[in-house]
Order: sequence, then C-alpha cells, then structure tokens
Amino acid sequence: MGEKIQRLPGFRDFFPEDCAVRNYVFGKWREISRIYGFHEYDGPILEPTDLYKKKSGDEILGQLFHFDDKGERGVAMRPELTPTLARMAAARHRDYKKPLRWFGIGQFFRYEKPQKGRTREFYQLNADILGEESKEADAELIAFAIDLMLALGFNKEDFIIRLSDREAWLDFMRQESIDSSSQEYFLQTIDKIEREKDEITNEALVKIGTTRGAVQNFIDSAAESKHFSSVINNLQARGLSDYVKVDLNVVRGLAYYTGTVFEVFDTNRNMRAIAGGGRYDRLCSLISDGTADIPACGFAMGDVVITDLIKQTKSANSKLLNYLGTEDSSDAYIIIADENHRNDALSIVQLLRNNGYRVSYPLTPTKVGKQFGNAENLKSRTAVIIGSEYPKIKVKDLIQREEIEIETDQILKFIKSIKNTPPEGPLLAE
Amino acid sequence: MGEKIQRLPGFRDFFPEDCAVRNYVFGKWREISRIYGFHEYDGPILEPTDLYKKKSGDEILGQLFHFDDKGERGVAMRPELTPTLARMAAARHRDYKKPLRWFGIGQFFRYEKPQKGRTREFYQLNADILGEESKEADAELIAFAIDLMLALGFNKEDFIIRLSDREAWLDFMRQESIDSSSQEYFLQTIDKIEREKDEITNEALVKIGTTRGAVQNFIDSAAESKHFSSVINNLQARGLSDYVKVDLNVVRGLAYYTGTVFEVFDTNRNMRAIAGGGRYDRLCSLISDGTADIPACGFAMGDVVITDLIKQTKSANSKLLNYLGTEDSSDAYIIIADENHRNDALSIVQLLRNNGYRVSYPLTPTKVGKQFGNAENLKSRTAVIIGSEYPKIKVKDLIQREEIEIETDQILKFIKSIKNTPPEGPLLAE
Repeated sequence: MGEKIQRLPGFRDFFPEDCAVRNYVFGKWREISRIYGFHEYDGPILEPTDLYKKKSGDEILGQLFHFDDKGERGVAMRPELTPTLARMAAARHRDYKKPLRWFGIGQFFRYEKPQKGRTREFYQLNADILGEESKEADAELIAFAIDLMLALGFNKEDFIIRLSDREAWLDFMRQESIDSSSQEYFLQTIDKIEREKDEITNEALVKIGTTRGAVQNFIDSAAESKHFSSVINNLQARGLSDYVKVDLNVVRGLAYYTGTVFEVFDTNRNMRAIAGGGRYDRLCSLISDGTADIPACGFAMGDVVITDLIKQTKSANSKLLNYLGTEDSSDAYIIIADENHRNDALSIVQLLRNNGYRVSYPLTPTKVGKQFGNAENLKSRTAVIIGSEYPKIKVKDLIQREEIEIETDQILKFIKSIKNTPPEGPLLAE
Repeated sequence: MGEKIQRLPGFRDFFPEDCAVRNYVFGKWREISRIYGFHEYDGPILEPTDLYKKKSGDEILGQLFHFDDKGERGVAMRPELTPTLARMAAARHRDYKKPLRWFGIGQFFRYEKPQKGRTREFYQLNADILGEESKEADAELIAFAIDLMLALGFNKEDFIIRLSDREAWLDFMRQESIDSSSQEYFLQTIDKIEREKDEITNEALVKIGTTRGAVQNFIDSAAESKHFSSVINNLQARGLSDYVKVDLNVVRGLAYYTGTVFEVFDTNRNMRAIAGGGRYDRLCSLISDGTADIPACGFAMGDVVITDLIKQTKSANSKLLNYLGTEDSSDAYIIIADENHRNDALSIVQLLRNNGYRVSYPLTPTKVGKQFGNAENLKSRTAVIIGSEYPKIKVKDLIQREEIEIETDQILKFIKSIKNTPPEGPLLAE
C-alpha cells in the first residue's frame, strides 16, 4: 500500500477558513490598487532560470526551485515578480501610455528553511510605476503603501515607513573617497548594520576607508539630506508625512535598487519589515539587453507576515473578523418538510439562485430538525419551509426569529426584504 | 550580454488587457460557486510526485513538470486539483459538516506540445461535493455547470450537457460477459469511440467478446436506462432538463470515475468538451490508504477553451466587453493647471481616494491639453481642474461634456453625484 501522502514542507493547504483569510488580504490589495489607478497583470509561474541569474547572479540558484524541463530548458519557479515585469515591459512598453501603473498578485517560491513567518511559497502584491523617473512616482507608491496599511485596519502607532535613498549613500562614498568598485560591498555592509555588532561593522568599513562612527554621523544627519525633500513634501500635501521617517539604515538587500528605497516597518510587535521597495531604473535595460531603458519603481508586500500581523493587531483583526462573518453566510436554506414536494423545493432553489441569492438545501431526505441545524451551520439568514401546505410556504428569518406564511409567488419579494433588513432592524412583516 | 530572455513556450503573459479577461472569467466562476453555496479552498502548486502516480500510474510522469527538489524529494507542479482535494479531505473531513461543497480556482501545468487551445499552464475551476453518495449531488453539479454557462452569456443553442454513467457500461459488460479484468481496456475503447474508425473499434471489442454493433445498440437504447432517471427528474424540477441529453459515448478518460460522468459540450463551433466531471467514490480512499472513505463528485472547467468560446459567441462576448468597458475606467483625473497648486491637488487626490474613488493625476508638470488626453485614456468619468482660481475648482463631466465651478469643499458631493449619474442620464447641475 505505501504511506499516506503528505504535503511538502514549507507549503500550505488553504482549507476554506484559510482561503477566506487569503481572499480578504487579496481583496484589500486589489481595492487599494484600484483606487490608486493601477491595472492588474501577471506572468508565468515558471520562467527561464537565466532571467533570475541575469538579475541576481548565480548565487540566486541556491534559493530557487529550478530544474531542466523535458525540452532541456533551465527553468525556475519564480521567486519574485520584478524580473518578469521587466521582461514584459521591455517587450511591450510602447503599446501603453506612460507612466504604467501595474500591480500583480501572485504566488512565489523560494527554497529556504521553513520557519515561522517564512514558507517556501508565499503570495505577494507587487505594485510598480514604469516610465517615470521623478521622485513623485516614489511618493505615490509610498502613499499607496500607507493607505493599504490603513485600509487593513492598522493605525499610526502600528507601523512606520522607513525612507532611505541609495543616492545618499553614494554621496557618502564620494565624500569618504570610497572606491566605486566597493559599492556593493559597502551597501551590503550597511544593509546588515542593525543586526551586526558595531565592532564587526567597523572592521568591514575600515577596509574600504571609512568607519562605523562616520557612517553613524551620516545616518544621524539624514533628515537634512536633499534627497528626501520632494518625497516628504509630497506626502505632507496628502496629510501622510507623519507615517514616514527618514532612516538611512534601510538599504534593502537587492542589488538592483538605484535611488529611493523604503520599507513598511512593524513598530510595536516584531520590529520587522512588512513590505518594501524602491527605485530600480536600470533593471529593464539589463533584462532587455539595453533595448528598453525604462525608469521604474515599485514595492511588494507578502501575505505571510501581513496576515500574522493582522491577527495580532486588534483593530486590523476586527476588520478581518467582520469580513469572515459575512463572507460565508447564506441567503436562504430550503427546508423540505414533505418529500412529496422535493421537486417544488428544487424549483424554488432554482428561482432564488437565478436571482443571485446564495441558497442551499438538503440533497437527500433529512429530518426537519437536522435541516434547521444545517441552515444555522451555513449561517443562513432565512429558512424557507416547503411542506404539505404547498403552494403556501413558510419563511423564517433566522436572526429575527420570526416566521410568516406566504404564497409561493411571494418568495422572491420576501427573501429580498429580509436580506435588506439589518439583523437588528425593524420587524419582517410590513 | 547574451540573448534577450523570452518567456517559456506554452506559458502566457497576462498584460493588463489579458488579465482583465482572466479576472472576468474568475469572477463568473466565483459568482456561481457562491450562489450554489460552495466555499473556496486551494492547495499547493507543488505536490509530491507520488500523489499523481498513486492516482494515475507511472504514465502520468510523461505529462508532468516534475523534478527532485534540493531535499531530494520527487515533486511535481500540479496537473490537476482532485488529488490535492482528496489528500486535504482525507486529512480533515471530520472537521466539516457533510456534504462539503468546495470549489477552487488555480493554475495547473502539463508538459504537452503547445497548440491552439492547449497551453502548458492553464487555470481551472474545480467544484466538488464530498460526503454525499446520492445522485442528487451529481444533479446539483450539473445544474451548477448549466447556470455557469448561462451566466457567461451562452444560450441553449450554444451548449449541451452530455450525460453518461460508467455503471451503465458495467451493466453492459456483465450482459456481454466481458471479464471485469478488461474493464479499463473496455472503457478506454469506448472513450475513443467517436474519434476512431468503426472497424478498428470493432477489432478492439471482439478481443474481449463484444462488437461495435452491440455497443451501438446499447448507446441507442441509453435513454431508457435506470441510471439517469433521478438526475433527469431533478434537473426537470429546476427547469434545466432541456440542457441535458443522455449520451453513453461520454466516458471521460480518467481512470478514477465510478458513476455519473458528464461534459459540457460546445454544440455549434468546435464540437469539443468545455468542462467535464463525474463521480469518483473511491479516490479519497485510495489517496488516504483507506483511512478516509468519502464518496465524491465534481467537475472542472479550464480557462483556455471557455475564453476562446466566449470571444467567438456573440451573446457571451458582449457580456465580456461590457465588463471590460467599465472595469478599467476611473472616477476622476485631477488636472493641475497651475503648478503652484500641486500640493492642493495632492490633497484632493487623497481626499477622493480616502472615499474610495479611483483617481489619477499627472505625476510631473504636464501641459493641460495633454492632461485632458490622459484623462480620456484612463476612461475617467470626470476631470477636476485645479488652477489659479483655487480654492474654486472646476469639475468637468467628461461624458456629458459639462463643466461647473465649485468650492473645494463641494468636491466629494459632486464626484459622487456624477458617478451615480448614468452617461445618458440627467444633466449634472442639480
């Protein structure tokens, strides 16, 4: 016989109660994307491995689900969307008015050790503006990220946007006469600065001609930097600047960022990044071998960390629970109290469904008491009772606990009136 | 440098106009699933290869994207959802009231030669009822499939449900004294009967003790079969029986079906199956090594064939076009006619977005004429013009072609009134 087959480590099953949470997050991602005028796109889950090597070098292979397909192509399950976006934009950007505002919601795969908050697959919102080099686009994305957090039910004390700029660090390198060939080494050292002991960071910095102290002075004076004034001013005009602080500690690991970088930071729980992004003006050109030189900026938010945080944060969780409470409710459960009228019941099921109502009924003969139990389990607003009095039928409002008898041809009107009556509203009969 | 990287053969990019079509189909799938009281679930895109081998034998490997992961597990990108469903249901079915009505919308992968209507990845709706052995559940799923086709805008002349039953063919085998060890061979022969020459089918059948003629007589007498009366009666009660015809030619290739099988058949275009399914009472037990013996039935519809058919069918296509026409429209485009008031414009952008309106604006200084062009490109219902008269602003209904001047604090009221005015409706001013 063999063993019972289990799902793979680091992968998730979405049972209906999990899938509803996932869909709630997707719904909020789509809602704010729509308000901000973004259009949804998607690409393949499987791409040529070269697409990722080109962007990130061979080291990326260690984190990829990659293999040779039956056609001997090196293929990889996508670890992120940006290389696909760059490939798609390079191929067709002339067909669209710039700037492009595109968002995608999709699944991504990384072969990492599974642990809390880190799975081998995850969903991510990606929102990008292509074809606009001004920092006004960066500000628009930061505003998007803030409004998304607010729409999810987070408050000002729950998160902060940490705003940084790679150009500021390039200024510092020039000021300290650090050779430009050390740029990646330097930025990687800064990227680790908050997690690393000062002495170790200092050792690393001394090698290229600067010190931990010089770096700290630069971080402390960041608020005066010219690189942030236009973004801050823009967000101020929207009333959103209180959600942002300049923080040069943020570099964002990925090699391709060229200017503004930012992250949405969880201030009171786990002190971690919830989302992040920035400007990557040279990636489209790199992916397209110079045929499409498109300035771009974007950010991404994964589903795993944000879902954890929603569940841990009272105001956000109550929004989620509110959604879950209505999402799986039904409009009517048809109770067949007399099996001789099963066909009549089916015709009513069909009539209500044709009018867009969510309806269930017992597929096979079932005791009436159990049918009422089913109606409650399915969170049905009403029970429609088909019995020997047919074509007279009873309609019971399962929240108001009221029952009336009506003629069959009145059923649509009553289901509609009950659906539109709030649970705490006026009595059913007019 | 190297070559420009292309997407893999048989995979699709979803540019915004393609993604909108995809989302329209997903929306209809969700709408009817909801009305029928189904709950959404999903499983991993990557599963142990054994899950598919167990269900379909080693032959399945030829059609899979499968490989060994870094942990030396045999893994496969899912070619279908049913084995995952069986695995999930076997693991947790006791946590849910039966019958389960579950649906999933996900992506699937098959390594096949790409050709028209056949890609290497596709999306599929899967709708299944678990824990109910009666044919009433089969009828419920067939009604679901019919209502889905109608919701997509197809009419009675566009499609038919071909209804069959493997039990009927088992009756035939007994009647003809065909050994039960030949069952799979026999059903596969019937499965090919419409595509194969009669002589070849006859040769194949003679080997196991029957003939093409005997099979045809049985097919011709199918309407009288006892196996269909309850399903037909059920659909008749819903007013849906005209969409169904009994047709024993349908077997559905997959080995795991045990009773009712059916397909949604394209009657006037390409004479092909658009969707199909049936009863598979032994699969959960097989996948769980006998620990969960759950009767089940379900059906699936892929996105590729249905999307082709929608585009080829006038009534269905006009519903799609109607959706596309509103889906990407905007509520307001903010025209910045005087750059001194850019910050004021940003505050209005924010105000409108906070109230759920979809708003764009020029990220950088742009000529006013070009801004009006942008507003039209984005299918914006209104233009809000911020100029030197600020805090007086102009609001222009871009469909009615009317413009009025208002105070800034009136803006919300006006955007709302215009949004609620149909394009052919009464004039803007109260």
